[in-house]
Amino acid sequence: MVKDKITKRFASSNALYICDMSKPLILVTNDDSIYSKGIKSLIEAVLPLGDVVVVAPDSPQSGMGHAVTIHGILRVNEEKIFPGVKAYSTSGTPVDCVKLAIGSVLDRKPDLLVSGINHGSNSSINVIYSGTMSAAVEGAVEGIPSVGFSLLDHDHDADFRASQKVVRTIAENILNDGKLPEGICLNVNIPKGAPEEIKGIRICRQAKAYWEDNFDHRKDPMGKPYYWMLGEFKNFDKGEDTDEFALKNNFVSVVPVQYDLTAYHAISHLQQWNL
Amino acid sequence: MVKDKITKRFASSNALYICDMSKPLILVTNDDSIYSKGIKSLIEAVLPLGDVVVVAPDSPQSGMGHAVTIHGILRVNEEKIFPGVKAYSTSGTPVDCVKLAIGSVLDRKPDLLVSGINHGSNSSINVIYSGTMSAAVEGAVEGIPSVGFSLLDHDHDADFRASQKVVRTIAENILNDGKLPEGICLNVNIPKGAPEEIKGIRICRQAKAYWEDNFDHRKDPMGKPYYWMLGEFKNFDKGEDTDEFALKNNFVSVVPVQYDLTAYHAISHLQQWNL
Repeated sequence: MVKDKITKRFASSNALYICDMSKPLILVTNDDSIYSKGIKSLIEAVLPLGDVVVVAPDSPQSGMGHAVTIHGILRVNEEKIFPGVKAYSTSGTPVDCVKLAIGSVLDRKPDLLVSGINHGSNSSINVIYSGTMSAAVEGAVEGIPSVGFSLLDHDHDADFRASQKVVRTIAENILNDGKLPEGICLNVNIPKGAPEEIKGIRICRQAKAYWEDNFDHRKDPMGKPYYWMLGEFKNFDKGEDTDEFALKNNFVSVVPVQYDLTAYHAISHLQQWNL
Repeated sequence: MVKDKITKRFASSNALYICDMSKPLILVTNDDSIYSKGIKSLIEAVLPLGDVVVVAPDSPQSGMGHAVTIHGILRVNEEKIFPGVKAYSTSGTPVDCVKLAIGSVLDRKPDLLVSGINHGSNSSINVIYSGTMSAAVEGAVEGIPSVGFSLLDHDHDADFRASQKVVRTIAENILNDGKLPEGICLNVNIPKGAPEEIKGIRICRQAKAYWEDNFDHRKDPMGKPYYWMLGEFKNFDKGEDTDEFALKNNFVSVVPVQYDLTAYHAISHLQQWNL
């Protein structure tokens, strides 16, 4: 097997896409796959704002969290599915897509990364399981202003009109600012419903909640047991400054999300241990 | 297909394992698979401290982050590989293992969850990609005092003696306290070397770093392109209170890790936006 070449970070000579330098460069990804309605809606929403490039999974990757492909190969294929937009599907996870975009597809750093629009909520604790949000977190780690968008509707033909308005507003704010505060990305969740039903946008904190997991226990045709994961979302946080509260009251929730996971408040407690 | 039953959370009648109520219950998992030397070393280290149950992946799951299996089935098999210890391999990710342990294997909440000992570092930004640490984070979300242990040595036959001493010390501290501060787990990394080379244990913050990703671009026998992910770890944080600094100076690093990802410091900035 011949090792052809190693593509350097934003190495213009090896890049698959030569960016239009006159416009903001916007990288689009998601976890529901490049063939979902959510990513099409997201592309439509940001297309008037810049030079849009899509790098997204070729199959659904929900619940993949921050998984990366370190012991397998990755494929990248150009897709002619969005008129006038360069798009690449990959065999990887959402985080792989961001890494491939930066390391192999683009010849410069994007001005904005948008992920989604997810079919289903990524509020509260869902942020840690979400492929949509992990792609945005990876963008932030790479120093790109990044946002994950999710609509509280799992329907594959969901109504993304309200979400598109929200995407446009938030993307314009970031492009006007030129940045987000250092070390963060945004987790944006949009209530289900028509645009006129949305009451506004609120900056929130992540509600304290968890999934109470049950398992559906079955037997296969050979009599061998297997399990399906079930789960019930348990929100035990009644705070009016949470994403869950905002969403229940028909507001869009925006949570600034950080990838420095250090619990600074716990350091002094641990320093009292006998280590 | 007959739906046999739904196992309830810690439902004693359906549990695969009836716990010894007279001892602390210790759940062991990892991401390198149930057949790795690291998990065997971890089991040996905690065995004198309680009733030990192992639920771990049946194949390597490095880099799986917080992935969960929501669109596929899960298998659980009893494994007779650790004398005197109940052990189950699963077809799932590290986070699936924790969920299966809680939802199907155990009849009560563990007093301690330990994950690892990982073959390789999970310091700094690696915490977000790590299956080892994601299992510990999932334990914390479920309210279980949880710790991920990683040795800075990828060798499958690495020397875990120093790590075992560290595991014992930290596990004893947690069992004595009966808890960890709310909403956190611990990310413990151990320098490579013999026990006498370790200078001590330091409570640290996560160093600011990232992976600069390159891709090795190859062609398959059919002439179609594919990629292998490469990467160079870039630590741009010179702080002496970081995990990277501690490890470089032969100290064990302990970082308290939280799953509330809200960047509270960014909320006021965002509230000034025109939304």
